[in-house]
Amino acid sequence: MMTFTPLLVLELASDTKKEAIAWLLSRMRDQQQNGGAELIVEQLGPGVSTQEKENLNIFLVGASRQRLLSGAEEIGFFKEFKDGSMRAFTCTNKYDFKDFKGDGDSFFSVAECQYIIKHELDTLRAKDETHVPGYTQAKLYPGKSLIRRLQSKGILIQMFPLHEKEELKRLSFSWYKKVKLSLQPLDDIRHYYGEGQALYFGFLQYFTFALVPFAVIGVPYYMFDWEGYDKHVVLAVFNLVWCTVILELWKQFSASLAYRWGTLSRKKAFEEPRPGFHGILGFNPVTGREEPLYPNTKRQLRIYFVSLPFVLLCLYLSFCVMMVYFQMESLVLSIHDEDPTFCSGVLLFIPSIIYAVVIEIMNFIYRYAAEFLTEWENHRLESSYQNHLVLKVLVFNFFNCFASLFFIAFIMQDMVLLRQSLATLLITSQILNQFMEAFLPYWFQRRRNKMMIHKVRKIRTLEDKELPLVEQVRLETYMSTYLGTFDDYLELFLLFGYVSLFSCVYPLAAVLVVLNNITEVYSDAFKMCHVFKRPFTDPAADIGVWQLAFETMSVIAVVTNCALIGMSPHVKAYFPDSETQLILWTVAVEHVLLAFKFILTFLIPDVPKHIQIKLARLEFESQEALKKKKMLEASELSKTIQ
Amino acid sequence: MMTFTPLLVLELASDTKKEAIAWLLSRMRDQQQNGGAELIVEQLGPGVSTQEKENLNIFLVGASRQRLLSGAEEIGFFKEFKDGSMRAFTCTNKYDFKDFKGDGDSFFSVAECQYIIKHELDTLRAKDETHVPGYTQAKLYPGKSLIRRLQSKGILIQMFPLHEKEELKRLSFSWYKKVKLSLQPLDDIRHYYGEGQALYFGFLQYFTFALVPFAVIGVPYYMFDWEGYDKHVVLAVFNLVWCTVILELWKQFSASLAYRWGTLSRKKAFEEPRPGFHGILGFNPVTGREEPLYPNTKRQLRIYFVSLPFVLLCLYLSFCVMMVYFQMESLVLSIHDEDPTFCSGVLLFIPSIIYAVVIEIMNFIYRYAAEFLTEWENHRLESSYQNHLVLKVLVFNFFNCFASLFFIAFIMQDMVLLRQSLATLLITSQILNQFMEAFLPYWFQRRRNKMMIHKVRKIRTLEDKELPLVEQVRLETYMSTYLGTFDDYLELFLLFGYVSLFSCVYPLAAVLVVLNNITEVYSDAFKMCHVFKRPFTDPAADIGVWQLAFETMSVIAVVTNCALIGMSPHVKAYFPDSETQLILWTVAVEHVLLAFKFILTFLIPDVPKHIQIKLARLEFESQEALKKKKMLEASELSKTIQ
Repeated sequence: MMTFTPLLVLELASDTKKEAIAWLLSRMRDQQQNGGAELIVEQLGPGVSTQEKENLNIFLVGASRQRLLSGAEEIGFFKEFKDGSMRAFTCTNKYDFKDFKGDGDSFFSVAECQYIIKHELDTLRAKDETHVPGYTQAKLYPGKSLIRRLQSKGILIQMFPLHEKEELKRLSFSWYKKVKLSLQPLDDIRHYYGEGQALYFGFLQYFTFALVPFAVIGVPYYMFDWEGYDKHVVLAVFNLVWCTVILELWKQFSASLAYRWGTLSRKKAFEEPRPGFHGILGFNPVTGREEPLYPNTKRQLRIYFVSLPFVLLCLYLSFCVMMVYFQMESLVLSIHDEDPTFCSGVLLFIPSIIYAVVIEIMNFIYRYAAEFLTEWENHRLESSYQNHLVLKVLVFNFFNCFASLFFIAFIMQDMVLLRQSLATLLITSQILNQFMEAFLPYWFQRRRNKMMIHKVRKIRTLEDKELPLVEQVRLETYMSTYLGTFDDYLELFLLFGYVSLFSCVYPLAAVLVVLNNITEVYSDAFKMCHVFKRPFTDPAADIGVWQLAFETMSVIAVVTNCALIGMSPHVKAYFPDSETQLILWTVAVEHVLLAFKFILTFLIPDVPKHIQIKLARLEFESQEALKKKKMLEASELSKTIQ
Repeated sequence: MMTFTPLLVLELASDTKKEAIAWLLSRMRDQQQNGGAELIVEQLGPGVSTQEKENLNIFLVGASRQRLLSGAEEIGFFKEFKDGSMRAFTCTNKYDFKDFKGDGDSFFSVAECQYIIKHELDTLRAKDETHVPGYTQAKLYPGKSLIRRLQSKGILIQMFPLHEKEELKRLSFSWYKKVKLSLQPLDDIRHYYGEGQALYFGFLQYFTFALVPFAVIGVPYYMFDWEGYDKHVVLAVFNLVWCTVILELWKQFSASLAYRWGTLSRKKAFEEPRPGFHGILGFNPVTGREEPLYPNTKRQLRIYFVSLPFVLLCLYLSFCVMMVYFQMESLVLSIHDEDPTFCSGVLLFIPSIIYAVVIEIMNFIYRYAAEFLTEWENHRLESSYQNHLVLKVLVFNFFNCFASLFFIAFIMQDMVLLRQSLATLLITSQILNQFMEAFLPYWFQRRRNKMMIHKVRKIRTLEDKELPLVEQVRLETYMSTYLGTFDDYLELFLLFGYVSLFSCVYPLAAVLVVLNNITEVYSDAFKMCHVFKRPFTDPAADIGVWQLAFETMSVIAVVTNCALIGMSPHVKAYFPDSETQLILWTVAVEHVLLAFKFILTFLIPDVPKHIQIKLARLEFESQEALKKKKMLEASELSKTIQ
């Protein structure tokens, strides 16, 4: 029986040497004064399927309540104070926090406790060990994080937090099992998965709601085929204002959420190097600690002379594929023109569908190449790695998905084909995405789950299909690892592109995206609950680089929409004599709209007023307290002198 | 004789009631524990010119060394530490700062001491007084700054820091008396005038140097009348990259300066309401103190329904004046065409000169109106007042100065007239500015100075033309007050516009601006030393809103330059068949350049790498120290429990 609540699972390689395990466990259990982590660790007992080759080096990690509280103080979690403001948690005045009762049992959520333990493990540092016992090649130096070295040497296979079955049931019920129109239970999601996840679902929900007015306006345009100058301009101006305003208001909304969750003003700890980062040992100029260093110039060379050419090559390849698609398109069109039957009418959609599938496959392959290259660029920080990866993937995906549409719109100037391509691309990619992203992994996981239950049933009977802890843990070690919100945001980004870039040609896109988002919410929620290992929480205060990506897209959308309107025959009819006049007017309007957009971005504050005031009050109070303390010290000093 | 070093002068109204003076002095001299400022105050003796009606209520303020140190700690001055980093000064570890020797006599510059005393006076607050003694209408409430109330009721006429004659001589020698090519003595300027002034002179110098390559490139274009397509494009691209890069590098340069001067990471104190701010007494949501409140909606109404229409009206007026100018221009041209003589040739320049003078006058009048309106909008903070004033003035000045040039360039498309107008406007406004800004005030001050020396000589003989302290102080009370760097930056902003907006039409503009800037340095330095009262230092970390203004101008410059190139006949010759093609190409190039510009802005970091590292190290060290402290506390606590 477990004598503590297990929070984390550590899986070491099954052939890990005994001395390494003993050393690691002693370091994890050792007191903090001696440089240990003061955690509780226990080995997981053998499972039911002893006939198979099973990894026995699985450990459950927990911590005493006191240890969790001191860990929380070290991280600096922000919690609600008695006066309603958010303050950094400290053990000395723990009773002044609003929800702290008794010995603080449920003050921190399980997800937060898991984050604390992860932080403690990450900051468990080598003392005078020169290498991991039993592994002379796994070098250590004072201050090196043990966990990162074990990870990079493949001794530590994985480390993940445990799911809570009961919590998960409750969450999944309020999240997606009720078939009714309701808001996402963001606070519950945050409670179970942390801020990063909750912000993603918050954004998904916000984005969907924000698209609704656009979809509502778009429907009559599509149904009645409105094409007048004034109507187009109304739609385009609405599009512009809408894009800018929703992105700005999202900033405010996310700041409110982050304030409530205590991540808005939490100070970032000093970032450790990534596990995969390598270099020659030197001294970090910031911490003064020994650490591998890698010259920046070398990284720049790799970026500009390998990664950049590679990305350009991929873009060229994507361009070639696009050209093949256009040839297929014209071939099919000539067949249909020669002998228009129902079959050839269906055939018209085939090239677009094939192209959409090829696009998805290319995006998929490119993604791996981009990860490999960014890994090879050897970035010191996880954040810088992420930024370079996002940039690479975004540029390629943008080009891959939208190049053909740009080509059709501005080079071929064929609005009918544009509308048809846009619809086919959008619908095909939606279907493919939902299938690849949710259904397939779910199906695999379900099979695995059933097999495990089946195995257990062979030995003893199970009530209510509940697995015992040991089996549950083993089952979770086989679950897929959730790789973060990257792909989810990327999908939203591309959908946003389909809606905003050519909105005045195909206003129905918004309707399709709204529908997609509704199913996306369900499938994302479902896969979070049933397909993946529980991820560690990610104390995010905003959606990071994606805010910038969406804003850039909305700027591009202004340009494309203005150009599309300028090209429409109804607008051309207003300038019968001079095409020059038409273009000059279009360009002028576009510049004015862009300027207006920037002014709007500037005028709407990023953080809502009432939160600004709360933050200012906290800042003011801490300054006043500091002043008082200094005055006291000074008067005491003068008394001592006297 | 003075028993202390006088640092500040307080001038009260000559008819101030005795009880008010006695009360103010006692509050200023009272100990800090009792809510006083603990300063030294002495009345200034009568001057030589007793025959005239002279104000006797002039007070000199100083402070003990200990008081200055504790004040410096309260403000949080950043000073160089022994290890070379910049840290907030504290009395307890004062000996760990690099330049702290003995009792810290010259550790703080006189300007810093004056700032400390100003801060102490500003934060001298009412206790239980309900009004200023003797003035029932000058209401007070607990926490109200006394000085601000006295200022707003006209009892306190002025408060200014004293010049140091010796320092000033030394500074002016290294600053402008040596006629040799040398960099501005920025550290000395900062030492005497503070960071805001030093940053202005730093920017002026930087801007001048940055213009030099532009001027060098411009000269052959002007002399040999280069007009080819490629040459224009080279110039325009250079212009674009140059504008972006210098503005980004300036950010880095100013961050380096601000780091060295300790203002980069100094925390801003909570901003007090402006002296002129009025409203109904309520509680500030941030401080919880009693304070006048003014509803934001009311202010917004004033801004959008009074200020905005007024600005638009002024713009319309400026437009009308421009139209009159064009009529004058065509009239003169017709006279010259009928009978071209030398006289009529000279006459051609007259309308432009008159127009330039009228522009200057309109700018001058508008400035007062803008100040009045912004005052009337009743902003709570000085910073928000400044932002609204800058915005109003910038928009009008931009329109007033450049509207005619835009009209000539893009509506009339007359490049010869554009070049001529640009040159006349630029030269006339430069001459006018130098005259109004430096020569006139200097002349007035010189007269006043001579009269004072003359008066003193009547009574006793003076050696070396040095005035005794009493006379010196009285003389300084009559000096003009320096109104900040606003006008200086505005002038640079307009010059930047003349250079960058139409650079490919009149490349010589850069040469003129460089010449102007060189004289500007001298005249500005001269008037700072001899015309104005010493200003209080302004602990600025950057040039604030002007950075944004200059960046906006450089974006507009990209648009105008692209348009100008597209309109040039040499470029038109490349597209003989289709004007549409030409325009589309121009627009495409413009968009690419703008995108490139934004990427460049994004890529160049605002703070240089080595300073980022230093700041990160400080942050890391303070976090580590906090952690250690908490660990110690925790272990002590556990010992006590045992």
